[in-house]
Amino acid sequence: MSAPVEGLVRPHRLRAGDRVAVVAPSGPVVAERLAAGREILESWGLRVEVAPHVLDTHPRLGYLAGSDHDRAADLQRAWLDPSISAVLCARGGYGAQRMIDLLDWPAMRGVPPKVFAGFSDITALHEAFAEELGIVTLHAPMVASSAFIEDGVTADGLRRALFEPERATVLSAPSARPVASGRAIGVTIGGCLALLADGRGAASTRPSAAGTLLMLEDVGEETYQLDRMLTSLSRSGWLAGVAGIALGSWHECTPDLEAVRLVMEDRLGDLGVPVLWELGFGHGPRSLTVPLGLPAELDADAGTVTYAMPPLV
Amino acid sequence: MSAPVEGLVRPHRLRAGDRVAVVAPSGPVVAERLAAGREILESWGLRVEVAPHVLDTHPRLGYLAGSDHDRAADLQRAWLDPSISAVLCARGGYGAQRMIDLLDWPAMRGVPPKVFAGFSDITALHEAFAEELGIVTLHAPMVASSAFIEDGVTADGLRRALFEPERATVLSAPSARPVASGRAIGVTIGGCLALLADGRGAASTRPSAAGTLLMLEDVGEETYQLDRMLTSLSRSGWLAGVAGIALGSWHECTPDLEAVRLVMEDRLGDLGVPVLWELGFGHGPRSLTVPLGLPAELDADAGTVTYAMPPLV
Repeated sequence: MSAPVEGLVRPHRLRAGDRVAVVAPSGPVVAERLAAGREILESWGLRVEVAPHVLDTHPRLGYLAGSDHDRAADLQRAWLDPSISAVLCARGGYGAQRMIDLLDWPAMRGVPPKVFAGFSDITALHEAFAEELGIVTLHAPMVASSAFIEDGVTADGLRRALFEPERATVLSAPSARPVASGRAIGVTIGGCLALLADGRGAASTRPSAAGTLLMLEDVGEETYQLDRMLTSLSRSGWLAGVAGIALGSWHECTPDLEAVRLVMEDRLGDLGVPVLWELGFGHGPRSLTVPLGLPAELDADAGTVTYAMPPLV
Repeated sequence: MSAPVEGLVRPHRLRAGDRVAVVAPSGPVVAERLAAGREILESWGLRVEVAPHVLDTHPRLGYLAGSDHDRAADLQRAWLDPSISAVLCARGGYGAQRMIDLLDWPAMRGVPPKVFAGFSDITALHEAFAEELGIVTLHAPMVASSAFIEDGVTADGLRRALFEPERATVLSAPSARPVASGRAIGVTIGGCLALLADGRGAASTRPSAAGTLLMLEDVGEETYQLDRMLTSLSRSGWLAGVAGIALGSWHECTPDLEAVRLVMEDRLGDLGVPVLWELGFGHGPRSLTVPLGLPAELDADAGTVTYAMPPLV
């Protein structure tokens, strides 16, 4: 490539003693899991503040952690609190799209950037943080999720990105192999396929993936549903001009992983850009921490994504 | 309302002896079911032509009936054949979105309108027929579906719409009751929620539901997924200005129908337009035939949709 690829603004790294907030913008959180995740964060020397409504459940819609207003207020309060260095999501599920438009983005733009981390349903918030605040965020395991609690490699990946970001600049996985060969450079975006498909056209989402390195994963979908979402992103023009694609986990997608690979090959294999299979981020028992908004090079044959710089300064 | 609501162009009704084509734009068809459905059509005096690729299965993607090219060619050939009076879909599933852009719409615009019928995945084709051809279509039970084969009331609803369209101008169901009271007038659009959500932004789909009576149903989705799709349609502006909403069946949606009703109430109840619950179209063992593209009045309290004219001339 000739023109430089510009990334978003990078927040500051964490240090022992920093305060971090845990929020739940999406689904209800299990208290025991939250406690286990909190212990890990505290073992890193962080002071952890659990936002007031993290353990709420919406009065009528049981798939939501608290009311839309309360979930938004928790996130916004943590973001505007100058003593908080990072905002970490407790879990995904569903609900971020219901609270995004309640956030006071101008107010949030008025404070210095800080770390924001999560994935799955949080994909909608990654899009919004990129679009509204223009900052690098972390597609990362969540505090009350089993991968974070139970898999030391997964938790340590987040720890490295937060505390030693210069050691978090290469993504690779033993399973990675090309769907389509080649190398490409772009700024990373993406996350959960369903959220990207459903987010199109909303405020606080970007109009297209043109010029980017697109990270994609999902959980519990049938292959025809994955096809439908990819076809939809393609038909609407959102995928046009994407520089390269790195695929993560397809945990509990049915009927099986090989069927998923055939869909990806069918829908993405002839775009004329490199596509990497099974990079090892997303749902599932082990997951990489993936910086979003940062320039990187995808090498589908080497099975790597290499960032041009650390995700945090 | 003051301004007249204009519908789309109405095709001609069928008469005994007419030839009809059965096509499979989406998922694979079971031969025995197709044979049973064909018998019903023949019992109405129709001469039935099954398109060449209806019983195909895609070589790699088992959820598709034949290749995209063949599914499109079957539909297009039937549409352009002047001896065919109606094109009826064998079943839904998934796949219409993959073949829509392969259809030669200018050529299809060049022939007189004829009946097109189906639902579920076929929602994407209803949108395209409205947008590209400007004609009334029938959201109707499909030839190789169990509701059509096994439920005489369901089959007879389609028969009435096709042969005695002046007897197919009122939709009602014992289960119908208001989510939001009131009356509204508009041209009917809609179908399967997932298809409408995923179709946004594509060629051959309408940019918004403004001014319409929106018919919505879906199958096998979890409540959070229904919420996500409705939230997505709302956030992108697609729902803005809708005149009224009639909800059909939510067959096999989990955890249960009451939970679905709560989602509909939460997402649609405060739009300020009448919303009718359980009008009895869509998936499930019994289904109404719903004309799309025709002006009608929704009366949420009476539990009815009353068309201003018969769907066919």
